[in-house]
Amino acid sequence: METTLRDLHEMSLRSRKAFYDLSAASLNARNQALLALARVLEERYEAIQAANREDLRAAEQDHLAAPLMHRLVFDRKKLNQVADGLRALAALPDPLGKTTYAMEITEGLSVYRVVCPIGVIGVIFESRPDALIQIASLCIKSGNAVLLKGGREAIRTNRILCDCVRLALEEAGLPFDSAQLLESREDVASMLKEDALIDLIIPRGSRQFVRYIMDNSRIPVLGHSDGICHVYIDEFAEPALAVKVALDSKVQNVSVCNAAETILVHEKIAPAVLPPLCDALKKAGVEIRGDEAVRKIVPCVPAQAEDWETEYLDYIVSVKTVASLAEAVEHINAYGSHHTDCICTASEKNAAVFMQRVDSAGVYWNVSTRFADGFVYGFGAEVGIATGKIHARGPMGLEGLTTYKYKLIGSGQTMAEMKSGERAYTHNPLSDTCPL
Amino acid sequence: METTLRDLHEMSLRSRKAFYDLSAASLNARNQALLALARVLEERYEAIQAANREDLRAAEQDHLAAPLMHRLVFDRKKLNQVADGLRALAALPDPLGKTTYAMEITEGLSVYRVVCPIGVIGVIFESRPDALIQIASLCIKSGNAVLLKGGREAIRTNRILCDCVRLALEEAGLPFDSAQLLESREDVASMLKEDALIDLIIPRGSRQFVRYIMDNSRIPVLGHSDGICHVYIDEFAEPALAVKVALDSKVQNVSVCNAAETILVHEKIAPAVLPPLCDALKKAGVEIRGDEAVRKIVPCVPAQAEDWETEYLDYIVSVKTVASLAEAVEHINAYGSHHTDCICTASEKNAAVFMQRVDSAGVYWNVSTRFADGFVYGFGAEVGIATGKIHARGPMGLEGLTTYKYKLIGSGQTMAEMKSGERAYTHNPLSDTCPL
Repeated sequence: METTLRDLHEMSLRSRKAFYDLSAASLNARNQALLALARVLEERYEAIQAANREDLRAAEQDHLAAPLMHRLVFDRKKLNQVADGLRALAALPDPLGKTTYAMEITEGLSVYRVVCPIGVIGVIFESRPDALIQIASLCIKSGNAVLLKGGREAIRTNRILCDCVRLALEEAGLPFDSAQLLESREDVASMLKEDALIDLIIPRGSRQFVRYIMDNSRIPVLGHSDGICHVYIDEFAEPALAVKVALDSKVQNVSVCNAAETILVHEKIAPAVLPPLCDALKKAGVEIRGDEAVRKIVPCVPAQAEDWETEYLDYIVSVKTVASLAEAVEHINAYGSHHTDCICTASEKNAAVFMQRVDSAGVYWNVSTRFADGFVYGFGAEVGIATGKIHARGPMGLEGLTTYKYKLIGSGQTMAEMKSGERAYTHNPLSDTCPL
Repeated sequence: METTLRDLHEMSLRSRKAFYDLSAASLNARNQALLALARVLEERYEAIQAANREDLRAAEQDHLAAPLMHRLVFDRKKLNQVADGLRALAALPDPLGKTTYAMEITEGLSVYRVVCPIGVIGVIFESRPDALIQIASLCIKSGNAVLLKGGREAIRTNRILCDCVRLALEEAGLPFDSAQLLESREDVASMLKEDALIDLIIPRGSRQFVRYIMDNSRIPVLGHSDGICHVYIDEFAEPALAVKVALDSKVQNVSVCNAAETILVHEKIAPAVLPPLCDALKKAGVEIRGDEAVRKIVPCVPAQAEDWETEYLDYIVSVKTVASLAEAVEHINAYGSHHTDCICTASEKNAAVFMQRVDSAGVYWNVSTRFADGFVYGFGAEVGIATGKIHARGPMGLEGLTTYKYKLIGSGQTMAEMKSGERAYTHNPLSDTCPL
């Protein structure tokens, strides 16, 4: 299985050219490409399955771990899910073209801020081949050209899936270079140098990987590096509800970024909450690492300093008592990853303080941290979850793939006229949308 | 004049702590700080003037160029402008707290997206001391803590101005460490390492300087590196209007980023437009560098390849003929800096194509590029102009200094219930604002 070194500069130039055409395409053409893709995938299912079987065989020979093998599968069930997703995406409203600001500057001159695509986006994703279709389709719908780099293990499947995307683009009269596939780490390294042609990199991967990208490129990076999520059980929590929420946050799926890693318990409620909580956690197979106060109430492993900053992604949880809401907030802001944190309480006042002061993309009151997801929030689909604060924060849907431009429509106005007082600023807010 | 090396890690920690309090402050407290600042500046005017005189004396000894000397002055007129600006800013609506998305996820569980401040922002600005007040006040109004680094020449003035800001913050009951002053290049280099504590860097400076920042920090950077703005005179342009707009774009102020550097002229209208245009430019003292076709119509200096990618910031302009609207768009996208570009035309169709396809923060129809400014657009004030596409684009006002968080308000919902089908997604859009 060979990968060939690509000329990333040449590919980036083609992406950029494709973007200029794609950005001017109608909503109908973009939707047609998505519907055509659903059809092409079904038509070419046998070829896709053959490629996927080869990937699976190679992965078996490489002794890939079972969960990774599972993610690599692209079978009829995945195909149906992907096709359904494409049709749902085609039915969503246009993320582009909306006027979000309109103001008359002076007589005969107005400014409009209009939503538009970002440009060329590089996305590096994990071994699931269905992620390729999901990401490419979100980019097409939002008018962005995309350079795709998937997991090495899925390369044969990804090649044929990317071909399907390009075929569908062409069928809809859109430039097929709007989607191009990268194949190697060297390709990624070369891509990072194309800051004049690529507008954004979205790396989905480990913290180290995201840092590597940030350290080696001037291109802006959106992504999340860690998911150290907390559930804080306040002194005014309803114990049964708190146990239910904390348990679900930890065990519903331990290997995802929005699973809880640390549970904080107010010392006043600890004697009432810790026994049933730890009982439920242990029954679910979770190892509990507690601070001294916790260990006085329930027997468990002593927590070490590094436990508070560890993303286990496993059946392990750290548990700590705090003397106040303020201490809980301080702990979360200091050790958390600004992803998603929850307070369980019956006090609206304490919930308001927590939600105001915790500096995270998601601040939850009485609900499991597992709800941090673009589909759950109602975005239709997501391209990733951002833990930075710039541009997009939290689950990133179509809106996260857009920017805007200011369109000024005038009739010969000059700054000299404004400065001389010959013309005056009116700054009259407008309610209409940009006429072009 | 000594500067002392600061412990930037310690300062960043104090900024972060200040941010947590400031972000929870009421609009009234933030506005009180702005009004107090206007008063404090007036009360301490003599001391400010004394410090400014020292800066000016030192600058004179260092033979600072006249335009830089001029920008360094902080006199009674500047004080009045600054105080007026502070009162106007206090009168603007709250940039924080607005609900921008609201959806019921399932019965008893809703998600709200609420606008909030970004956090700790590092701003590096030029020698104008009034910029310090402008930037600090925008940060206070938007709930962000700021680390300020001004021009070396203004250090004495900046010190006393920053003291005034801190005094005003304290008077309003807000943490004075919300504004701190950096004094040296070493301070800046140390600040760039604090990516765990600082959320955003806004460098106002040369292209090389912005690149230096990007290459040496993981902290996101917003700023503009270049202003290569174009005026394209279309074949359907009204000649008198086109000359007026092109002239203002070039000469109204040559040393600013939104001044035009290149004028493109459709070859069909070149014989009619170039003579009056070049006449007007020459009368204004502008050197014209033309391509071959231009030189056949008007005598001028031959343009070299590098002219198309040069930001002159001077009384120089490059002029080129193009065979089509498409060629103009291609030239602008290839050589421009994605800042602000204008088409002069009487054809709505051509204007629409230009505004769709030119990939710039500002796309103008029949109006001078000099209008690219936050005050002009009606934002009240601006912290800078962004030529990137991520987060903010074009003039950045208060809105550019905000992000958002998702607040989920539930009653014990778990993902296990959703997956088992015990509960269903309702995805019911809500029209209310977040209750807390």
